[in-house]
Amino acid sequence: MKKIMLKITLLVVVLTFHPVISNAQSRKDKEQTVTVKDPYDVAKINAPKGKKIKNVILMIGDGMSLMDMYSAWTLNKGKLNLENAQAVGLSKTYCANKLITDSGAGGTAIATGHKTNYHMVGTDVNGNPLPSLTDFAKNKQLSTGVVVTCRLNDATPADFCCNNTDRDKDYEIVADYTTCGVDFIFGGGSKYFENRPDGRNIFREMENKGYQTPKNWDALSKINSGKVLAVVDTLDLPEPKVRGNILEKASMKAVDMLSKNDKGFFLMIEGSQLDDYGHFNDLDLLMQEIFDFDKTIGKVFEWAAKDGETLVIVTADHETGGLTLVGGDLEKGKIVGKFSTTGHSGVMVPVYAFGPGSENFTGIYENTALFDKIKKLLNL
Amino acid sequence: MKKIMLKITLLVVVLTFHPVISNAQSRKDKEQTVTVKDPYDVAKINAPKGKKIKNVILMIGDGMSLMDMYSAWTLNKGKLNLENAQAVGLSKTYCANKLITDSGAGGTAIATGHKTNYHMVGTDVNGNPLPSLTDFAKNKQLSTGVVVTCRLNDATPADFCCNNTDRDKDYEIVADYTTCGVDFIFGGGSKYFENRPDGRNIFREMENKGYQTPKNWDALSKINSGKVLAVVDTLDLPEPKVRGNILEKASMKAVDMLSKNDKGFFLMIEGSQLDDYGHFNDLDLLMQEIFDFDKTIGKVFEWAAKDGETLVIVTADHETGGLTLVGGDLEKGKIVGKFSTTGHSGVMVPVYAFGPGSENFTGIYENTALFDKIKKLLNL
Repeated sequence: MKKIMLKITLLVVVLTFHPVISNAQSRKDKEQTVTVKDPYDVAKINAPKGKKIKNVILMIGDGMSLMDMYSAWTLNKGKLNLENAQAVGLSKTYCANKLITDSGAGGTAIATGHKTNYHMVGTDVNGNPLPSLTDFAKNKQLSTGVVVTCRLNDATPADFCCNNTDRDKDYEIVADYTTCGVDFIFGGGSKYFENRPDGRNIFREMENKGYQTPKNWDALSKINSGKVLAVVDTLDLPEPKVRGNILEKASMKAVDMLSKNDKGFFLMIEGSQLDDYGHFNDLDLLMQEIFDFDKTIGKVFEWAAKDGETLVIVTADHETGGLTLVGGDLEKGKIVGKFSTTGHSGVMVPVYAFGPGSENFTGIYENTALFDKIKKLLNL
Repeated sequence: MKKIMLKITLLVVVLTFHPVISNAQSRKDKEQTVTVKDPYDVAKINAPKGKKIKNVILMIGDGMSLMDMYSAWTLNKGKLNLENAQAVGLSKTYCANKLITDSGAGGTAIATGHKTNYHMVGTDVNGNPLPSLTDFAKNKQLSTGVVVTCRLNDATPADFCCNNTDRDKDYEIVADYTTCGVDFIFGGGSKYFENRPDGRNIFREMENKGYQTPKNWDALSKINSGKVLAVVDTLDLPEPKVRGNILEKASMKAVDMLSKNDKGFFLMIEGSQLDDYGHFNDLDLLMQEIFDFDKTIGKVFEWAAKDGETLVIVTADHETGGLTLVGGDLEKGKIVGKFSTTGHSGVMVPVYAFGPGSENFTGIYENTALFDKIKKLLNL
């Protein structure tokens, strides 16, 4: 009993004094002011007129709420690339056993069309593996890709490539990349690919399956064909200021390579770390992440507009932080925001659609309907 | 100087100890739990297939955010009539001189198509009166109506019927009803219609113009034709439990009477007091107001579905309270919410559209575009 009490006391002490958690708690319910340092230009991008849908690019802002998006819009002095979306819908994110979901169950619903339990990735509530949009696309000979700035064992990429009842089974999840068959994989988390407790080296296994395994952008930039597993950091990639526009570059590299397939492609791009800065209640870093994600959205929309047969969907798996924009100035690019929680909240998240078929994404629907609509429109 | 200081001190004391304001402050940033007492059934209402738009019913939930709506949806165990809307859009509510607007400038943008200054109703930034949708409709021989549960001098009804640079000029605003020409007017605020400082009796003036002036539902229910000014309370109508389903009854009475015009009608219905309970940070009363508004939405959608030529738009003028749904249980109809502000916030508000022409209301746009779209679709 004494040992248990000591463990609990130690845990409480560690949690209380953990810098990230204590900082988040101290910021919660307090006003934070951010003023724009580098507002960026946004072009008017006209969506193509055609009806044919050959490719779908699904962009997930992890934890990105309507309030997050509008705060970023205000901070950037009233402009975001995302505004070029033609259609808007609302997605209900609750999971099979909780009102407030996580990226495991939230992303699984989008990837597989099934509501599952909290913390599960790519499985149904009974733990059975579920095929995801990347599997369905692959089966119809489309090319597939996943581009994230977090470690690849994190929930969102895992929802599309892996199957586990526990999102924290990092090594098991990473091993699933050897069988997922996705053509272009980009993210962090090399720690879980090599020097593993089970002795496996996932890089070697993937190379034996024909994958190229660049470890940084320079190496990746030189690759123009074939399969790619690009793991460019030990864990998550660093914050936007440090990592630069790598999300944009990796996303457009994926588009460039996958679009060589005449049958089309399905690509999932994640603004992975919005969620982290929502949890940390860090308004400045959250806005930097949204700017980074929105700049990538701009490049993707531009490419899709030229291509004419690409549908782009931008959405979120859930909301994080419960941000309220309590003040600010549009002309000065200044926002005053307050977070309500260091966790997730239960609100619906918007869906923004650009390109042919976008009209199918208006209205109010379950997050699983995103899977249904994409599957149907790509004829998978 | 001493006098001014004394006045300021007294004001601070009054504000601090005013029961509504001090209660709101004590609730802010705190979790509140509400469990459903009387969940109500919601029918699947299929929107009509036709293309012709003869009538528009615009329903404004004053201060109704996405979070408010989804919290009510959760509390009602996963159902709202509003979900029958086919299309969803997002409306930017900022006004000419502030990021965070009020019902004066917010409603004026919807009613007249002009962004104006904070606190102005039905005028441009220079104070020039602006014609509203009710004026444009009247000029094309359509019938018009305004149904609210607040006093008729409150900002939202005033935006559609009156013109003043200051929403607090209650007596001046009420006098404008004598010249607005709206066919069906329902709300509260009789205090401002009679025993006025200027000696005018607005009831008598309206009667002289041919209006019937019932003072309660019983009297109104017996009227079936002609012009109506129904002012059924001294100030705002009481809370939903006390006032019953008067919003629904008055709205359907308006629809019944206005729809006799073969040329069509424009009707604005407001869920007026959502905003008040957002300001008071009172989650229970806010949910009661949304339930009341949503039940009215259900009746209006049902009627519109049968009519086949009526477009219904449901939206808000701004957001109030900054609610976050931090917990709850969908099966039990339980919500845990937290308000972030006793004022308004800057987030975009959703637009929900039902019926012919609804596809025009998806996407992201200025609140003034609501005026433009309605004007165009009704050919005003």
